[in-house]
Amino acid sequence: MASSVIRDLLVLLDRPDVISFAGGIPDDALFPVDAVAGATDRVLRADPGRALQYGPTQGDPGLRDWIAARMRARGVDGCTAEHVLITSGSQQALDLIGRLIVAPGRPVAVEQPSYLGALQSFRAYEAGFRSISDADGALDPDRLAPADAAPPSLAYVVSDFANPTGATLTRIEREALLAAAGAAGTAIIEDAAYTDLRYEGRAEPPILALDTARAGSLDRTRTLHCGSFSKILVPGLRIGFVCAGRPVIDRLVRAKQAADLHTATLNQLIVADLAATVLDDHLPRLISAYRSRRDTLLDALSATMPPGVGWSRPSGGMFVWLRLPEGLDTTALLTEAVEDRKVAFIPGGAFAIDPTHRRHARLSFTLGPDARIREGVSRLADLLSARLAEGASSPKTAATPPPVAAVG
Amino acid sequence: MASSVIRDLLVLLDRPDVISFAGGIPDDALFPVDAVAGATDRVLRADPGRALQYGPTQGDPGLRDWIAARMRARGVDGCTAEHVLITSGSQQALDLIGRLIVAPGRPVAVEQPSYLGALQSFRAYEAGFRSISDADGALDPDRLAPADAAPPSLAYVVSDFANPTGATLTRIEREALLAAAGAAGTAIIEDAAYTDLRYEGRAEPPILALDTARAGSLDRTRTLHCGSFSKILVPGLRIGFVCAGRPVIDRLVRAKQAADLHTATLNQLIVADLAATVLDDHLPRLISAYRSRRDTLLDALSATMPPGVGWSRPSGGMFVWLRLPEGLDTTALLTEAVEDRKVAFIPGGAFAIDPTHRRHARLSFTLGPDARIREGVSRLADLLSARLAEGASSPKTAATPPPVAAVG
Repeated sequence: MASSVIRDLLVLLDRPDVISFAGGIPDDALFPVDAVAGATDRVLRADPGRALQYGPTQGDPGLRDWIAARMRARGVDGCTAEHVLITSGSQQALDLIGRLIVAPGRPVAVEQPSYLGALQSFRAYEAGFRSISDADGALDPDRLAPADAAPPSLAYVVSDFANPTGATLTRIEREALLAAAGAAGTAIIEDAAYTDLRYEGRAEPPILALDTARAGSLDRTRTLHCGSFSKILVPGLRIGFVCAGRPVIDRLVRAKQAADLHTATLNQLIVADLAATVLDDHLPRLISAYRSRRDTLLDALSATMPPGVGWSRPSGGMFVWLRLPEGLDTTALLTEAVEDRKVAFIPGGAFAIDPTHRRHARLSFTLGPDARIREGVSRLADLLSARLAEGASSPKTAATPPPVAAVG
Repeated sequence: MASSVIRDLLVLLDRPDVISFAGGIPDDALFPVDAVAGATDRVLRADPGRALQYGPTQGDPGLRDWIAARMRARGVDGCTAEHVLITSGSQQALDLIGRLIVAPGRPVAVEQPSYLGALQSFRAYEAGFRSISDADGALDPDRLAPADAAPPSLAYVVSDFANPTGATLTRIEREALLAAAGAAGTAIIEDAAYTDLRYEGRAEPPILALDTARAGSLDRTRTLHCGSFSKILVPGLRIGFVCAGRPVIDRLVRAKQAADLHTATLNQLIVADLAATVLDDHLPRLISAYRSRRDTLLDALSATMPPGVGWSRPSGGMFVWLRLPEGLDTTALLTEAVEDRKVAFIPGGAFAIDPTHRRHARLSFTLGPDARIREGVSRLADLLSARLAEGASSPKTAATPPPVAAVG
């Protein structure tokens, strides 16, 4: 599923005639290239034997120290390098957790819609899914463990600026999820891939921090907090991490050793250098650029979308979630959007565990520039206005075969 | 199991008082550090956006082209970039193949002894094992599929300079394995991690080349050829690959996407640059250095080992396989070796699927230098001579609890 989507996206990104809101990727024009080159040079000069040799499965101790300090600053009391595992991107964190925790006969609880890479990871372990979102997409922890069904092994949430909706869990929702998961014996994955990309407002405490306070010790928590440097530095180095209690980390280390021995040593040392040297300066520049692009997208949507179209207003992250009027289907619209109107998005069905969200689409605003965002929204608005004018039930809409059927 | 071994090894490597033959790692003094720095600089200048961005799951097309050309040169007719998947080290290749092919109720066939990282990978998929080696350690394809048992899903062999024995499969053995695997419906993993480190003699064709010739097309083969740049360039970049028929590669690409999206982009581009620029000069230097260390180890063994001790004489790779006289147990000897004699090795039991090879040990000769190899062998010879003098059946030997019990 995701495979087809991503293949399609890479093709679309190579077509300069198509304005793509589809790719959930950072803008490479904002990569701190000189800093990466400088860090690489320092790391290779300082200790080339170590930088290019095999390393410990759990990851570089210096990078784990830095991550632990950051987690403590965010309220995860008692966090040390022993509570951190470095992974090959946060996708690997999801995969290793799926391998350890997903159990036959017990579903994985997910918000609806949800990150398709996570769904793909858990599907690999033959997981069934259960939605913990209500009809409006809000988290409803009461759905976690209905009395007449097996409790989930795992609940997966993106706590801040979710992919694809841009939504952030409130503190009350986080506490309610923890209480429900505790009662059901369910582990929680807190995917914090976008947490650092906050454009306004105050940060909520990580679920892992709330869990640590409730449990009295990080080692007695049920939350696995997954983070990544892909969105705040560069994705091509593939450095992510899991922060959790030591008993869980120890099991994940054994699973990772069988999976790939360890994450590339050089890459970990580069990221540790960048975290200590440029991240504090780089992150505000990145936030400023993405905030401005988000504002451009939201303004363009307000200015041009026909009545009946709605969208989320995220306080951070990379995505706006679009909702079309009843009767329109984003999967059915995609071919016309790309081929005739030269604008691309990801249909909402790609993020669903059942045939829902067919009138939704994910729009990424990270790639900019502003003029291209405005032009893309204008093309999309023209398409939607035309479709709404000709009536949502026109034969053409109904008859068009889904062009990315594998996506649903 | 392997986890404990490797943790122990890392500790041992940090103890300058202990001469270690244990670590199966390349000598970082031989790393082409300046070349890596130069390649990184070129790659970051040429197209930083691409080098640091997400990339395709199957891997960088340029690197895959280079590998395909090399495979064609080794007799794998018709090999193209479409037949190659880049993995995060060859350990990931073993893991992804295990995930796809290991099936409940069907054993994995392995040589005895065998690479412990592979055993660990397949154990993660709850594989049982079946030995395809005879009592002398030679490959016996008749054992692959006895009439009264389920055929294996997979047969795993290290075709050249095996870990731990240093043995190389003859062409006749390769053909016999292919015939037996074909009759049994068994896939073959050809682990070629050490193939390029040949110190003398003529290369045998890869099993994949023989399979392609038999099947008439690479796409109809049953062999998955796993290679790595860890031993011939540097391990810390974590770049390995699988070469196989397209139907298998397509399935592996989907599994890899769920596992970690893709291998680090920067690392692939660095390796592609190094392969094109320095590998042809670097490899002969590496071979010359390791050949000399192998000779030093073999000469020292001949000069100092007491009667009754035997060892393999590998034509390449990194390891010599030591066999002690009946009654000695390398697991039981290890504590004394390390603590009293200050010399380390890996006990043979670590590479066994059953309680065999207890009087064997793996000695790595890659780390050198010559004086240290000679001194280490002298320490080991003193220990063995003392033990043989006091009698193999002394209470001390029998009573010592295995110090690395988890290794067996």
